[in-house]
Amino acid sequence: MVARRIWNALLTGISMVQLGYAQIPASSPDAPHYETVSNVTSPLSIGYIIFPGFTPLDVFGPLELLFQLSGTIPLTLSTISFTTGPVGARSPRPFTQYPSPTPFDPIHVLNPQIIATHTFATAPPLDVIIVPGGTGDFVLDNANDTSIEHFLASRFEAAQYVLSVCVGATTLARAGLLSGRRATTNKRAWAWATHPRHGENITWVPNARWVEDGKVWTSSGVAAGIDMMWAFIGHLWGEEVANRTVNGVEYTPHADKRWDAFAVVHDVPGADRNKSLTDCVRPAGW
Amino acid sequence: MVARRIWNALLTGISMVQLGYAQIPASSPDAPHYETVSNVTSPLSIGYIIFPGFTPLDVFGPLELLFQLSGTIPLTLSTISFTTGPVGARSPRPFTQYPSPTPFDPIHVLNPQIIATHTFATAPPLDVIIVPGGTGDFVLDNANDTSIEHFLASRFEAAQYVLSVCVGATTLARAGLLSGRRATTNKRAWAWATHPRHGENITWVPNARWVEDGKVWTSSGVAAGIDMMWAFIGHLWGEEVANRTVNGVEYTPHADKRWDAFAVVHDVPGADRNKSLTDCVRPAGW
Repeated sequence: MVARRIWNALLTGISMVQLGYAQIPASSPDAPHYETVSNVTSPLSIGYIIFPGFTPLDVFGPLELLFQLSGTIPLTLSTISFTTGPVGARSPRPFTQYPSPTPFDPIHVLNPQIIATHTFATAPPLDVIIVPGGTGDFVLDNANDTSIEHFLASRFEAAQYVLSVCVGATTLARAGLLSGRRATTNKRAWAWATHPRHGENITWVPNARWVEDGKVWTSSGVAAGIDMMWAFIGHLWGEEVANRTVNGVEYTPHADKRWDAFAVVHDVPGADRNKSLTDCVRPAGW
Repeated sequence: MVARRIWNALLTGISMVQLGYAQIPASSPDAPHYETVSNVTSPLSIGYIIFPGFTPLDVFGPLELLFQLSGTIPLTLSTISFTTGPVGARSPRPFTQYPSPTPFDPIHVLNPQIIATHTFATAPPLDVIIVPGGTGDFVLDNANDTSIEHFLASRFEAAQYVLSVCVGATTLARAGLLSGRRATTNKRAWAWATHPRHGENITWVPNARWVEDGKVWTSSGVAAGIDMMWAFIGHLWGEEVANRTVNGVEYTPHADKRWDAFAVVHDVPGADRNKSLTDCVRPAGW
């Protein structure tokens, strides 16, 4: 217990001093120490799919953890969209979302914009591909646009992992990546997201904060992406690194991927109403 | 209890159907129902300060809640920086962070970029100003740059509220906004953030997820901004609206602003080590 506290303090101290990993010899006692589970010796190439009408926290929740991690672990980031340049969170057109027939006009929705650095045509080789969700997915669906799905299908084999947040899972389904797999998605949009027309032979798991199925990880809605990313970082680089990352951003992860109170809140068929909606969380590793 | 469940289901149903507030007559049973505490009848003008080296989740955590809210409540967003156009999360230069003398070179840090829509000179009238933190604050401090502070001081009186996330509180301190007030900030950077040279006569609260002092609200680090924003939305538009917002993004807020396990984790002077580090959270209002 004492040794663990000293180890945590050491890691926290290293984080606080913010040692630049490229500047400190690996043999130095000041070199960042981390467990490396991944086989990647060159920087891990991350590709984040972006599209008009993306949900901001679907992107910046998990990305915050990777951003913090990049201070000591070699990563690269490509933000990939239809075009390079600004991409907004406001859907570009009115859309309908099954089962409602009423169109929603998003013209008054706030429109923070982020920069896409690559297109589907120019994206570099990717080790990890992350697919967020958003109301833009309904626009693309209404328009029968499958550009993102084609990109994912073309890059799937070469990628080490593909992750989705929220209704990004439906994009994976439409790309054929979930056939024969277990997956979960946003609980509020469950009816639209899990409709069989998006893909068959998919085991949609109603009670799951996130699901891990081999190289395909899928999370529930929006904030759940952060919990999944905490677990994913732990999977690749070990528990100490993952815990240090979330503690640095003062986030207490939902550690049990089977805890899913929001399946009940959003009345998902098959939601487990016998399980407690409460999750007692604390700083990771404490 | 039953009435509450029906009411929650009704609000959830309205969210799911995504009624455009501008299209539905107020007298219609389909019109969004919300409690309006604020006196603002025109859209609430929100200004989010951005700077090179901002922390992504400091911005997009709280902004996600406002983004969701904007589907039914009239808001406008200005992202305000030194220049318009892309602003990156990677600090532009090496920096030192007290108490460490070792410079950190951020050159390998991931650099997601967001668009600033306005400059400090062109920003419109603002009702709510939100100031994130980030490693870029150390660069500005090292350079004795007080552009953001001058902007805040000039806009403070006209604003209804000023909020900060993380070490954004230090920017507020340097702008003179915290004199005679209680405030909190990022716990990992506590020594730098609360140094007396940034401002005097400030009551820095070591055990606080966030602090509310009149029109000035300040949160602890990074993810704590989301909890503060949930409370702020409740303050302006009522509990039902705030709870519906976080439930829609599957986020369980830390509801007690005095819960602050990270003061202990990051060894802040005055941290309450007698209090439990655990917070039992559940979907808001459930």
